[in-house]
Amino acid sequence: MKGATDFDLQAWMKQRLDSVEQALGRWVSVAAESDLEHQAPAELMAAMRYAVLDGGKRLRPLLVLAAFEAVQSGLADSDAAANTPGLDTPESALRAACAVELIHAYSLVHDDMPCMDNDVLRRGKPTVHVQFGQASALLAGDALQALAFELLTPSVDQVPATLQAQLCRLLSRAAGCAGMAGGQAIDLASVGLQLDEAQLREMHRLKTGALLQASVMMGAACGPTSAEATAALRDFGSAIGLAFQVVDDILDVTADSATLGKTAGKDADNDKPTYVSLMGLAAASAYAHELLTQAKSALERSGLRDVRALQALADMLVTRSS
Amino acid sequence: MKGATDFDLQAWMKQRLDSVEQALGRWVSVAAESDLEHQAPAELMAAMRYAVLDGGKRLRPLLVLAAFEAVQSGLADSDAAANTPGLDTPESALRAACAVELIHAYSLVHDDMPCMDNDVLRRGKPTVHVQFGQASALLAGDALQALAFELLTPSVDQVPATLQAQLCRLLSRAAGCAGMAGGQAIDLASVGLQLDEAQLREMHRLKTGALLQASVMMGAACGPTSAEATAALRDFGSAIGLAFQVVDDILDVTADSATLGKTAGKDADNDKPTYVSLMGLAAASAYAHELLTQAKSALERSGLRDVRALQALADMLVTRSS
Repeated sequence: MKGATDFDLQAWMKQRLDSVEQALGRWVSVAAESDLEHQAPAELMAAMRYAVLDGGKRLRPLLVLAAFEAVQSGLADSDAAANTPGLDTPESALRAACAVELIHAYSLVHDDMPCMDNDVLRRGKPTVHVQFGQASALLAGDALQALAFELLTPSVDQVPATLQAQLCRLLSRAAGCAGMAGGQAIDLASVGLQLDEAQLREMHRLKTGALLQASVMMGAACGPTSAEATAALRDFGSAIGLAFQVVDDILDVTADSATLGKTAGKDADNDKPTYVSLMGLAAASAYAHELLTQAKSALERSGLRDVRALQALADMLVTRSS
Repeated sequence: MKGATDFDLQAWMKQRLDSVEQALGRWVSVAAESDLEHQAPAELMAAMRYAVLDGGKRLRPLLVLAAFEAVQSGLADSDAAANTPGLDTPESALRAACAVELIHAYSLVHDDMPCMDNDVLRRGKPTVHVQFGQASALLAGDALQALAFELLTPSVDQVPATLQAQLCRLLSRAAGCAGMAGGQAIDLASVGLQLDEAQLREMHRLKTGALLQASVMMGAACGPTSAEATAALRDFGSAIGLAFQVVDDILDVTADSATLGKTAGKDADNDKPTYVSLMGLAAASAYAHELLTQAKSALERSGLRDVRALQALADMLVTRSS
């Protein structure tokens, strides 16, 4: 297994981010993807583009692509020639990467609305409902969710039908009532309550973890699979999903709004339970690093030849400052 | 082609409605469908069940099942033995029927919210945000959209992967920015404006028509297909989609709230353009009947052996009083 030491994450990321940004710009536009022969109205598309383009860290698309490249590199102990990840990302992995980002983007739009977190700042810009009004924000979020599934279901010449179905299966479950939306509902119901660690973990596994884990699984689904590698990647996704949220809770306390590009300190202001409020700053930080160790050990278990991008992304996720 | 005269629509509907209600009750519940091994939180599920169960006319599921049965009956001029529609609806058609209804239900939940139509009455009950609060209504709608795609992507033992992908393709496009959500955005932008007939038609083709047409196409996709029959059913779906909206506009003026189960007269109150405001009551009614004729002629063109249920549903849709 190739380790992360000899790996230039910034160069790797730059190339993938370019593809993802280009693809998002192309797909979140007039409905070239649609077979309805109707075009999306310009006002709605403007709100959707505002929500998606120009500003996100694209962590989820990067996880999709890194997981795809890891499985594509083959098993380390296999005699079969490994597929060297080339510069060309296949259509399926790029669509999966963008679809996950659309789900993430829609969730932010709805989450920022006055009836939810009532936030006015996101990625350093006014939130969608501030810029376009609440009704447009609601519809743009709804349309982004649908667009995610449109992206995953092009003609079967572009992506095999079996893979389309599998990607829709993974994404819908991660986004829905037993995934992201379910976690947000628990979050909503828990304001002002004292959650124990098990309850807090369950909330975050659904709210943030499910989609991060699905990113890894969707990327893996686009390449050759083995049962062991898939199981190990599922554990990896689970560990980094939780680590991400623990770090988010830490940053909410330690970073300022300008660095975060969103309002800092809002969890405490909103009396929301967090890992910091539950275990204190030092223990939360130690927990994040423990989860990182778990994630790396899952990568070792995977038996995959080249997991450097996944490993480096996991490192970045825990040591990030925004 | 068997005509509608010898057809007992009420008996046909009763049987299908029973299956659909049972299936919705089973699927909009704890996440038995999920492979995440997490359960949806009870509060969210309560709002979702409230939005979906007990009250809808289920027009879209009925269209799915009727279209499925029509293609299943085979081509009238074919020597091949027709598949007689039995009492057992296959898994695929039932899932398609319920998925379309979930999209419809979510759109009503979001449409009723204060930032949209701000409606307090739906199907004779308080709307979801009145009953559960705005944040829960927002999340329940979001989760219902995801659940629609969960329903369409079970294990491939239950529904073939190719069909899963095709159903997700049809539904996502009908729901998204070049479909229902797009139509709602045009609707939103058109308040107080004078639309001409072409603009009004375009808005409704997206807002209501796309999902009704998709219902027909999804049902057809679950059975054996021929290019001619599919094209004719697409025209049928288009005509009844528009007819449905014209009749809706008429009922908004002529019916009372108790009959409709929702607030009557709200289009005029909201200064929204409608077919009645554009062409007057008599001409709107004549137009609805013209569209019904178009729909029936499309059914004749389909060459399908038994289109009685589709024909009877089209009749019902135009002559309905609520």
